[in-house]
Amino acid sequence: MQALWLENGRLYLRDDLSVPLPQAHEALVRVRLAGICTTDLELVKGYYPFSGVPGHEFVGQIAQAPGADDLVGRRVVGEINVACGHCGPCRAGLAKHCRNRQVLGIKQRQGAFAAYLCLPRSNLIPVPDSIADEAAVFAEPLAAALQIEEQVDIAAQHRVLLIGAGKLGLLIAFCLARTGCNLLVAARHSRPQSLLEQFQIAWETEDRLPERAFDIVVEASGTPAGFHLAQRCVRAAGTIVLKSTFKGEVRVNPSVWAVDEITLVGSRCGPLPKALHLLAAGAVDPLPLIEGRHPLPQALRAFEHAAKPGSLKILLEMEGV
Amino acid sequence: MQALWLENGRLYLRDDLSVPLPQAHEALVRVRLAGICTTDLELVKGYYPFSGVPGHEFVGQIAQAPGADDLVGRRVVGEINVACGHCGPCRAGLAKHCRNRQVLGIKQRQGAFAAYLCLPRSNLIPVPDSIADEAAVFAEPLAAALQIEEQVDIAAQHRVLLIGAGKLGLLIAFCLARTGCNLLVAARHSRPQSLLEQFQIAWETEDRLPERAFDIVVEASGTPAGFHLAQRCVRAAGTIVLKSTFKGEVRVNPSVWAVDEITLVGSRCGPLPKALHLLAAGAVDPLPLIEGRHPLPQALRAFEHAAKPGSLKILLEMEGV
Repeated sequence: MQALWLENGRLYLRDDLSVPLPQAHEALVRVRLAGICTTDLELVKGYYPFSGVPGHEFVGQIAQAPGADDLVGRRVVGEINVACGHCGPCRAGLAKHCRNRQVLGIKQRQGAFAAYLCLPRSNLIPVPDSIADEAAVFAEPLAAALQIEEQVDIAAQHRVLLIGAGKLGLLIAFCLARTGCNLLVAARHSRPQSLLEQFQIAWETEDRLPERAFDIVVEASGTPAGFHLAQRCVRAAGTIVLKSTFKGEVRVNPSVWAVDEITLVGSRCGPLPKALHLLAAGAVDPLPLIEGRHPLPQALRAFEHAAKPGSLKILLEMEGV
Repeated sequence: MQALWLENGRLYLRDDLSVPLPQAHEALVRVRLAGICTTDLELVKGYYPFSGVPGHEFVGQIAQAPGADDLVGRRVVGEINVACGHCGPCRAGLAKHCRNRQVLGIKQRQGAFAAYLCLPRSNLIPVPDSIADEAAVFAEPLAAALQIEEQVDIAAQHRVLLIGAGKLGLLIAFCLARTGCNLLVAARHSRPQSLLEQFQIAWETEDRLPERAFDIVVEASGTPAGFHLAQRCVRAAGTIVLKSTFKGEVRVNPSVWAVDEITLVGSRCGPLPKALHLLAAGAVDPLPLIEGRHPLPQALRAFEHAAKPGSLKILLEMEGV
């Protein structure tokens, strides 16, 4: 089958990969559509030492499910963390944090930028017919956006700053706007700014943000600079939510957090069923985020497109690959 | 009056200071006993650019209270943050985080290592007769220890690691032990180790701590190394409580917190009334922490003593100064 391959920071197309063979508890999924995420771009930069097929945002169709033939043909999205079921976190009900986990297209498991992928059947969630592929492919990042509300109480009286209006940032903006909070988005590029206006969400450029003014700051810029900006903008006894994964360190004095009693909350993947529910209800519309679609054979061009500053979601189409 | 004076990182005794004049809403307090805190040692190192009389842990007696003569003679401890009452945090009920705050012996207000100090009357809390001066002088750091429980739920099922068994660390250990949690203290020096054994609190040396094993890690070592140790020992989706204030930065990649969904909670001053309540009830006994007492004229020697690694609480006696 054809697939995109990442090795030593270099991406290339391969035609020589075998269609993966599902294990007894797994299903083989024919990928229909996959999304390029900033984490994929960071993987290329070396954020995490992954070799193989990247890609973790997808919608597909079950092609084989050993011992569960009734599942074949179902359209699905997938929980990307594959847990061992035996380690401490798994036994404590924290499968997402499994110590031995594989992560689709990120860690020890071939990903979605390919004609086919394998995942445990228990990781797959059926997609209601009312959700088009183009929306369903956003289920994974939308779930990640929703995870913030699972971790932090966000209510109408809260002044919330979202730093970063990229692919994930805009999904977070749409979710936060639903909470009724007093939301401001730090947006740098004109396209996201226009989109935010279209959805009646207030935005500001980074240099014009009031300092120490926000109860909650969500850092989704994917940059060390965004982290420092979050520190400047959060009020004393406020909360910073960390949504970015990037390569690179920041220098901080934790005493500042102690003195100002800042809470920092790391936040990763979220509830896929809730994301599908919102997509089915039309409560969040991700389609305006689609900036381009490329067939898998043009994946390198797609990555170039996705890496441009301010670019939004680029999708890879696997149809006919 | 006599006082200890800090300027440009140098401590010296002065005899030429006037007894401070209380403003209309303030009281003049004759200091009876004051404690040397690690923050005082960090101030000498330049943690914060303070010039003046340091000292913020004290018990004293009201000597003058303009318009409230009935208060004269009362034994008191004091809330060390003096708020403006007008700024955003003050109006939001966060007086401790007042933007214009003075902090006794730390920021823009002369402190307790002197014969007398001034504080607003509303900052002063009467000490019940049942609490001796030697215990009451611990009210401020004990309140800081109790602040952890105000911010983080700590229950019997939690595995809690406390890093640092110094002056503040041991008070935190005594408080955490009361919650019934599964507590382990990382203790480096033999004297705190013996004290912990005396109170039947488990301890371990830093090199023998299990990694990623604790639901909650309280960092009270006052060092960057303690911060990194906390990161290694907290489990995924766990909580690090930051109690240390020190000069110096750490290098971190916040992505690690995002991926592991770590929560970091900065924690500073706490509820003085609750601390007095526990002292009056005998629920926490700070007296074993007293390592030495020096009269104010020997304050420099007292500071040398307090700065020795592993040393516990050094008190300054103002009687007759």
